[in-house]
Amino acid sequence: MSKVLLIHGPNLNLLGTREPDKYGQLTSDEIVEGLNKLNLVNKVDYCQSNSEPDIVNAIQNAGAYSGLIINAGAFSHTSVAIADALRALKIPKLAVHITNIYQRENFRHSDLVGEACDGAIVGLGTDGYKLALEHLCDTF
Amino acid sequence: MSKVLLIHGPNLNLLGTREPDKYGQLTSDEIVEGLNKLNLVNKVDYCQSNSEPDIVNAIQNAGAYSGLIINAGAFSHTSVAIADALRALKIPKLAVHITNIYQRENFRHSDLVGEACDGAIVGLGTDGYKLALEHLCDTF
Amino acid sequence: MSKVLLIHGPNLNLLGTREPDKYGQLTSDEIVEGLNKLNLVNKVDYCQSNSEPDIVNAIQNAGAYSGLIINAGAFSHTSVAIADALRALKIPKLAVHITNIYQRENFRHSDLVGEACDGAIVGLGTDGYKLALEHLCDTF
Amino acid sequence: MSKVLLIHGPNLNLLGTREPDKYGQLTSDEIVEGLNKLNLVNKVDYCQSNSEPDIVNAIQNAGAYSGLIINAGAFSHTSVAIADALRALKIPKLAVHITNIYQRENFRHSDLVGEACDGAIVGLGTDGYKLALEHLCDTF
Amino acid sequence: MSKVLLIHGPNLNLLGTREPDKYGQLTSDEIVEGLNKLNLVNKVDYCQSNSEPDIVNAIQNAGAYSGLIINAGAFSHTSVAIADALRALKIPKLAVHITNIYQRENFRHSDLVGEACDGAIVGLGTDGYKLALEHLCDTF
Amino acid sequence: MSKVLLIHGPNLNLLGTREPDKYGQLTSDEIVEGLNKLNLVNKVDYCQSNSEPDIVNAIQNAGAYSGLIINAGAFSHTSVAIADALRALKIPKLAVHITNIYQRENFRHSDLVGEACDGAIVGLGTDGYKLALEHLCDTF
Amino acid sequence: MSKVLLIHGPNLNLLGTREPDKYGQLTSDEIVEGLNKLNLVNKVDYCQSNSEPDIVNAIQNAGAYSGLIINAGAFSHTSVAIADALRALKIPKLAVHITNIYQRENFRHSDLVGEACDGAIVGLGTDGYKLALEHLCDTF
Amino acid sequence: MSKVLLIHGPNLNLLGTREPDKYGQLTSDEIVEGLNKLNLVNKVDYCQSNSEPDIVNAIQNAGAYSGLIINAGAFSHTSVAIADALRALKIPKLAVHITNIYQRENFRHSDLVGEACDGAIVGLGTDGYKLALEHLCDTF
Amino acid sequence: MSKVLLIHGPNLNLLGTREPDKYGQLTSDEIVEGLNKLNLVNKVDYCQSNSEPDIVNAIQNAGAYSGLIINAGAFSHTSVAIADALRALKIPKLAVHITNIYQRENFRHSDLVGEACDGAIVGLGTDGYKLALEHLCDTF
Amino acid sequence: MSKVLLIHGPNLNLLGTREPDKYGQLTSDEIVEGLNKLNLVNKVDYCQSNSEPDIVNAIQNAGAYSGLIINAGAFSHTSVAIADALRALKIPKLAVHITNIYQRENFRHSDLVGEACDGAIVGLGTDGYKLALEHLCDTF
Amino acid sequence: MSKVLLIHGPNLNLLGTREPDKYGQLTSDEIVEGLNKLNLVNKVDYCQSNSEPDIVNAIQNAGAYSGLIINAGAFSHTSVAIADALRALKIPKLAVHITNIYQRENFRHSDLVGEACDGAIVGLGTDGYKLALEHLCDTF
Amino acid sequence: MSKVLLIHGPNLNLLGTREPDKYGQLTSDEIVEGLNKLNLVNKVDYCQSNSEPDIVNAIQNAGAYSGLIINAGAFSHTSVAIADALRALKIPKLAVHITNIYQRENFRHSDLVGEACDGAIVGLGTDGYKLALEHLCDTF
Repeated sequence: MSKVLLIHGPNLNLLGTREPDKYGQLTSDEIVEGLNKLNLVNKVDYCQSNSEPDIVNAIQNAGAYSGLIINAGAFSHTSVAIADALRALKIPKLAVHITNIYQRENFRHSDLVGEACDGAIVGLGTDGYKLALEHLCDTF
Repeated sequence: MSKVLLIHGPNLNLLGTREPDKYGQLTSDEIVEGLNKLNLVNKVDYCQSNSEPDIVNAIQNAGAYSGLIINAGAFSHTSVAIADALRALKIPKLAVHITNIYQRENFRHSDLVGEACDGAIVGLGTDGYKLALEHLCDTF
Repeated sequence: MSKVLLIHGPNLNLLGTREPDKYGQLTSDEIVEGLNKLNLVNKVDYCQSNSEPDIVNAIQNAGAYSGLIINAGAFSHTSVAIADALRALKIPKLAVHITNIYQRENFRHSDLVGEACDGAIVGLGTDGYKLALEHLCDTF
Repeated sequence: MSKVLLIHGPNLNLLGTREPDKYGQLTSDEIVEGLNKLNLVNKVDYCQSNSEPDIVNAIQNAGAYSGLIINAGAFSHTSVAIADALRALKIPKLAVHITNIYQRENFRHSDLVGEACDGAIVGLGTDGYKLALEHLCDTF
Repeated sequence: MSKVLLIHGPNLNLLGTREPDKYGQLTSDEIVEGLNKLNLVNKVDYCQSNSEPDIVNAIQNAGAYSGLIINAGAFSHTSVAIADALRALKIPKLAVHITNIYQRENFRHSDLVGEACDGAIVGLGTDGYKLALEHLCDTF
Repeated sequence: MSKVLLIHGPNLNLLGTREPDKYGQLTSDEIVEGLNKLNLVNKVDYCQSNSEPDIVNAIQNAGAYSGLIINAGAFSHTSVAIADALRALKIPKLAVHITNIYQRENFRHSDLVGEACDGAIVGLGTDGYKLALEHLCDTF
Repeated sequence: MSKVLLIHGPNLNLLGTREPDKYGQLTSDEIVEGLNKLNLVNKVDYCQSNSEPDIVNAIQNAGAYSGLIINAGAFSHTSVAIADALRALKIPKLAVHITNIYQRENFRHSDLVGEACDGAIVGLGTDGYKLALEHLCDTF
Repeated sequence: MSKVLLIHGPNLNLLGTREPDKYGQLTSDEIVEGLNKLNLVNKVDYCQSNSEPDIVNAIQNAGAYSGLIINAGAFSHTSVAIADALRALKIPKLAVHITNIYQRENFRHSDLVGEACDGAIVGLGTDGYKLALEHLCDTF
Repeated sequence: MSKVLLIHGPNLNLLGTREPDKYGQLTSDEIVEGLNKLNLVNKVDYCQSNSEPDIVNAIQNAGAYSGLIINAGAFSHTSVAIADALRALKIPKLAVHITNIYQRENFRHSDLVGEACDGAIVGLGTDGYKLALEHLCDTF
Repeated sequence: MSKVLLIHGPNLNLLGTREPDKYGQLTSDEIVEGLNKLNLVNKVDYCQSNSEPDIVNAIQNAGAYSGLIINAGAFSHTSVAIADALRALKIPKLAVHITNIYQRENFRHSDLVGEACDGAIVGLGTDGYKLALEHLCDTF
Repeated sequence: MSKVLLIHGPNLNLLGTREPDKYGQLTSDEIVEGLNKLNLVNKVDYCQSNSEPDIVNAIQNAGAYSGLIINAGAFSHTSVAIADALRALKIPKLAVHITNIYQRENFRHSDLVGEACDGAIVGLGTDGYKLALEHLCDTF
Repeated sequence: MSKVLLIHGPNLNLLGTREPDKYGQLTSDEIVEGLNKLNLVNKVDYCQSNSEPDIVNAIQNAGAYSGLIINAGAFSHTSVAIADALRALKIPKLAVHITNIYQRENFRHSDLVGEACDGAIVGLGTDGYKLALEHLCDTF
């Protein structure tokens, strides 16, 4: 396995500065840097967008990656378009939620994106990204 | 960190023989053995029960462990008693689901146990146990 | 065909004494005795329990029987664990309800156990057990 | 007991030819012939109709029968008129469903006709008719 | 005003014999005879059917009447076809329910037919027919 | 029969001036006067109130009347207190709605007051009051 | 392809006279005549009925046609029996709705018949029939 | 009256140590001791279990007691089996909830156990047990 | 503690005469007299009203009392205004329901008033008032 | 424009003393005084009541005002009678909510009164009254 | 008629390569080419976007076209913005769905876009585009 | 206070030309010009977009403004992403709806954006913008 793509949805560009006790103190750059330092794969590419079509496009173009990790933020709960793009992508793919969405507002309980992925890691903070990357690399 | 408890709910004693393409080919013993071989913690203890009160008791008595991993099986969707016991337990605790429950029958979409834990790992097969154990041990 | 297992759920140990106009005048022993007297199978074994895990265990261990008849009582409406155990059991299996549950309180209208069996016999009183046994033995 | 009436609802005239793995390989004629050969009653009369009013009429005129067996097909889920006619009929009456309707589409889960009968036999294939006839004839 | 049509739906041919304490002791003939004796209109015509299409047809052909009274029985709660026919009929039209349907089972609480008529008289027994006829004849 | 009480709920004091094409051109006084001119009973008493407790009191004190007619207006859809008072009153009682409430906003479709009365006359305009009075006086 | 059957459900015999601005100015005869003039198939047969069983029967007997076009009118929203008959019919079949049912009352939003057909043409007026016929004849 | 049984459901063995500001500072032993010191009855027996079948059994065997007090904890909201056992027990029986369950999570708002008892005392802290005992002993 | 206020909602002025087998044989006066004879507090004041604003006012003016007992009758299920007034009142306050409202009609299952009080005593008949008074006076 | 009426519903007489951080520190008198000092209209009249009928009456009698501002408090969420009175009043009318009701309990999310007014100002504290008054006076 | 615009929503750029047995083997280019070859209009313009605002913009700018055909893909089920733009566009407009969305997941059953168009063609494969174009051009 | 940002969502670029009787006759430019002429703040900046990510970005970048006014149009009812961005923005912020959304289609009744702002001004036409600006500037 050589390359993995990490996609971040809306408002996740604010990571590290917004409510760090809830979302953690790491910025997105630090998360990606940390993932690359693990040397589990050749490269972890990163894209963040507040734009649903950008994310759909990124997923459509991810076919050459060995795996996909996605935290779609608010789009997790509303975007059928992203879920459809994920269903059409035939590589391993995982959803990550930093917080335990099932302890929060009702509108965060439905997870269209997680349902369209192979699985989801929920509520483990930014550690969830590392675990997702490991899962793409190994078999128990 | 020294000891972690893994709790399995009803019908998970059948792991490895029942629908291995869905639940994986590892038996519970092999899963526990695998976790212990990782040498991440001093010991991974294991208990399985088809009995809700046994699981409640196990949780109530888990206060001396460094962490708890629970796959409550069918009880995940119905047991307020287990969720209450988890809420009363003040150690790190994670829920694991081998399959992506959000792709299955409607009655498996509610996850009372995962809501009561710190987080959940869903649909990553038996690899989810390893990731849960790692999360209990490290910080990204 | 040689042996069939009859499983009774909670409060069905009270058969014959509790509300006999609703649940019939036969005790569980008399029902089992009557089934055995029919000489349709070598033996009808019987177990009753108010305990969900006992019933899950009994189902898990029923693989050597030629067929299973279950009246899970109140668990019919609430136990995903029993339904899961039934789905994992690869022998013919039938649900019996003595009363017509669809004429009673709303919480008795959902039948998780009947849905997990091959079929159900509902509202025919204790005669339902005889019919279930016959069905396991013959083909029309 | 001398005569029993068997009523079949819409599309059940296709029995034996349509999806025989789901509905069985017996035609309606064969089912009725089989029931009569059992010699449990003097005669099993039969009527099938795709017409709700024909079925209502048949039920209204069934007062002289010793018992009624009805598989109302699709009308089971929608016809208040048939259910009302059954409630007004003061003879023993049973509903039969060949398939386990609780394992099928949601709109087949409500059973207005079964609720209006004394009981129902669900999912036992065409054997359900024989069992229904027996139940009308004997007491356990 | 000269002629009024009274339409009765399924099972109302049993009036006078079925549950007279609930539906009254008058037969349909006696009700019609009583209405005609009032001499409020030249003639009250009557048709009863257990058949939804017969009732749709009767409504479609009722354009020459001065008014319509309909007790659609069970069809009141289920028939969009009858409601559509009523909406297409441009004469005064009233629904009558002998019993107070709002005190009965939930499935009798929706009244598609009453919604499609000018108004409804509910729960006044067979006196409701007389009142409906009067209303068609006078203005307060 | 000697005296009947007519109760009007909130905003019905505006009858005759507010939306006469919907609620009719008669004022409350004219309605009562018209009812009295019919000479069906010795006296039709009248009370109107925008106050729920006034109406509860009026119902509690109506035991000496031969019958009650109530159009509770907006309270029809919300007042359990009025419905309870009606249930405690042991004289004949009818609900009247001038308009066909089932053709209007959803919040007007529930009729707590009509459910608590013997019956209801709906959508016949102010003629409904006359019919209600007649029903209290005669038997078909 | 030689013959196609067009089936019309209840109240569609009123086409051309009832609310022509909503349902169009063509009568059923004119629609069929127009379809035949297209010379796309050898013959377009037509049957209309206000009767659900007639429509079920027509569908059951349509196996020799090359294709089926059905506008089941009000039955589209309520008839499981027609939907079942369509599912059992193994020829191309299309549903047509003259109006856009999703812009109308809530009870017209469910389309049991359209769900059981290959597809549906909704809201294109009577032009929908022509398009349906073309679709049965060609492939893009 | 001589003996009363107090039954505690899951996690109530933790009373006094878990969240004492919510559940009070008294342990179960202190509650029972306090009840016995009141000398209202000869003896207050006590049983606690995290096990649904143990509680069902305790209820089934409670027929010789003069009264029953039950705080079923989490089972209050889910156990049809316990509610059925209570309905079959013909002695006075009361439900107690230490906290006001209607101010807590939605899944605690349904009270199957309280519905099956004669009544319930909700939100009065551990004082509810004393009041329940008094009620079993006196009449106002 | 010196004075306690007891508030009764609509139709509770009929206590003792209306359905005494359901609501008990004591009148309101007798209940208050009984409470005062207990000598638990200096005085139990009483007010009853069928009027929601009277009850809101009484609650607003109850700040000088040591405690409040309220049986709001039908308003328990509908009055946000009374619940808001209770939330603004900073003295101990208890709701009492004479009957077990959870065994009655659905519209009596929501208890806005009980949710706004510290707790509720449900279904213990008029004895509930005595228990409520005691609870205001003692700590277990 | 000369006179405007401000109506306050239940518990709003407590403004300034109850939860001032939520509802503001101004009393009703101060609010009215402040509005009058603005000299936007000749006079702002004020009425507050905990009584639904008083408010209905005030609205019915407000026809001579140039505009109406209403904060119906708890009645906003429950009173069809007030909403009906507002619909019958043909002057400009605005609803004001001091708090953002959509951030509070579910039962405060429906706003029957705001729906019946021309518009609503929500969550702007007591400043909402000033803005409402301005809106009645000017056009952008 | 001269020009028609065809708009494709998210993931429809994958047509022809993704699940061709479900969505057909034609690419978007081939579909547009095919439509132009029909010579029904001067030109069929085409735009595809995974971006909701691009589609809103395209609709807003489509006023000079003679007609619009839109398959909004996943946005059909979620985008109020697109539906609003369609409602504001005063040219003929049709929705096309390649598959029968009513046979698929529940979240595809609501069709906000189809509701906002004149009509919809559902489940006829890519032939639906041709039929839509024809409908824009002719009248039956 | 020096600068305020006004954000307009999808289709609001059509203001002044589309349905001016519903949305008013002012264009967006005229609204902004009018706000600036009030001289309440140094500058009212304006951005409109049919694009959700543009609006999210604008909100994320608005931290230097003294206040925010947003009419998110259709996104008000669907965009969790915009609501999340608003929650992360720590300046005063108000939602404006030109029409009374509670009098329109059901899908416009939920206001995710208004819930995430401090408050909302609904149904006051374009005057709502002026009032929002005033509220940002003054305290009553």
